[in-house]
Amino acid sequence: MSNSTRRRPLILICNDDGIDAPGIRALAGAMTWLGEVRVVAPMTEQSAVGHAITMREPLRVREWPFVAVGENPDNPIASAHAVTGTPADCVKMAIHKLLPRRPDLVCSGINNGPNTAVNVIYSGTVSAATEAAILGVDSVAFSLGDWNQTDFSSAAEWSRRIAEQVVKRGLPPGILLNVNIPQLPVGEIKGVEVTRQARSQWKETFDARTDPYEQPYYWLGGEFVNLDDGTDTDLHAMKEGYVSLTPIQFDLTAHAHLTEMKTWTYVAPETETPAT
Amino acid sequence: MSNSTRRRPLILICNDDGIDAPGIRALAGAMTWLGEVRVVAPMTEQSAVGHAITMREPLRVREWPFVAVGENPDNPIASAHAVTGTPADCVKMAIHKLLPRRPDLVCSGINNGPNTAVNVIYSGTVSAATEAAILGVDSVAFSLGDWNQTDFSSAAEWSRRIAEQVVKRGLPPGILLNVNIPQLPVGEIKGVEVTRQARSQWKETFDARTDPYEQPYYWLGGEFVNLDDGTDTDLHAMKEGYVSLTPIQFDLTAHAHLTEMKTWTYVAPETETPAT
Repeated sequence: MSNSTRRRPLILICNDDGIDAPGIRALAGAMTWLGEVRVVAPMTEQSAVGHAITMREPLRVREWPFVAVGENPDNPIASAHAVTGTPADCVKMAIHKLLPRRPDLVCSGINNGPNTAVNVIYSGTVSAATEAAILGVDSVAFSLGDWNQTDFSSAAEWSRRIAEQVVKRGLPPGILLNVNIPQLPVGEIKGVEVTRQARSQWKETFDARTDPYEQPYYWLGGEFVNLDDGTDTDLHAMKEGYVSLTPIQFDLTAHAHLTEMKTWTYVAPETETPAT
Repeated sequence: MSNSTRRRPLILICNDDGIDAPGIRALAGAMTWLGEVRVVAPMTEQSAVGHAITMREPLRVREWPFVAVGENPDNPIASAHAVTGTPADCVKMAIHKLLPRRPDLVCSGINNGPNTAVNVIYSGTVSAATEAAILGVDSVAFSLGDWNQTDFSSAAEWSRRIAEQVVKRGLPPGILLNVNIPQLPVGEIKGVEVTRQARSQWKETFDARTDPYEQPYYWLGGEFVNLDDGTDTDLHAMKEGYVSLTPIQFDLTAHAHLTEMKTWTYVAPETETPAT
């Protein structure tokens, strides 16, 4: 890449683990080899917030002493801001208020733990990328395949490789990428598999306890269950040592089912006798 | 419907405006003409929470003095609980903990304001129905086409008609319904249109203010922009005086784009010279 012949892409970095998490430091650092990097991320952890936005409370924004890992010394992070909101709030705030121009790419992550199968729908990491896509900006959500890790170097390198392709090729309208990276050394990852979300479920449990005032309370917990033995899924790719790349969309319409539902008829109350 | 010949359907009612909102009172009341109704809803308003779930805090549950509107006097609400969590939390808690058996249908709403076009993705009302669908239960999200209304009687009647069809016909796996009902008298609504989500955007604004301690803060605001002049959209149906019924899915995979992304190649760091 020659900086002298064309403008470097402006890359916005966000996440849901909070601006001080190791995953965002590694992601932001890796992206400094690719373009001008600006960070706008939640001040505190926002996991499992889904696509929440903050309308009932004001948002605060602060410049942040952000320290990237693996940064290009000749192209350090251009700016970093922490926002007292959700990942989607951060992306809206960045694009409409904080960035000097419209970004070329939004990268979210690297999440501390996978966002595969049904979990995509609860993910704040994916939500940041979705918000960017809604606003017409190419975006990728990156997640590490393992929980409670501190070494994001391999995932950061693979994130850079994928972001490079997105900058080069662009994404179709309405599409973003959901990328999950196994926790393996860079060279041991076998490559990238384009996948679909596996069908899966959580077998929920509610751990019931009693507080010191004799009042009950519950902790949401559960066991993840893969219902899908396909070899083309995100879960399968990860298990086999590949990076999983799933194109996802934010139009939720089930287009294949529009026709059949047009045959339904509706009974007006005048024509029926309610059960008594 | 004859109660003597078959078991009445068990219908779970949830929402995101909170258990005391007028919309859920009307919805729960309408459904007592269709089956056994149990209410599990957030204790406080949870608008725009998206598909958030509560993992970092415990949940509290309370039996609630719920008053339905338009209730069948011979089949009153069977139970009502308020939960200190999100709509998705409520559905998980209801299905796994509070209901006597698996529900036949989950109805969410009636939301105070439409959930059409891109807004579906931010909607707590839709999130409750999505959670039910993930857990394999047929579900419908109902929203009123106008804000700040107190009369949900017409919307409740149309909700009952649609729920009746869902109970009778069932929904395909992985599909839920997102229903928006214009604020018109029952008889003036022209019928039900099966629609797709309109493409749209929010033109966000951040209203910047200064607090009494000289610190800046921001309110998220914005103007809704319809980018779609199709006559088959949710926005168009509502405008023409029809109930809009959109089948939506929670598998976000953009299946049409899987093939093209398999052609991408990724550059390893060994083979390139980083920009310096």
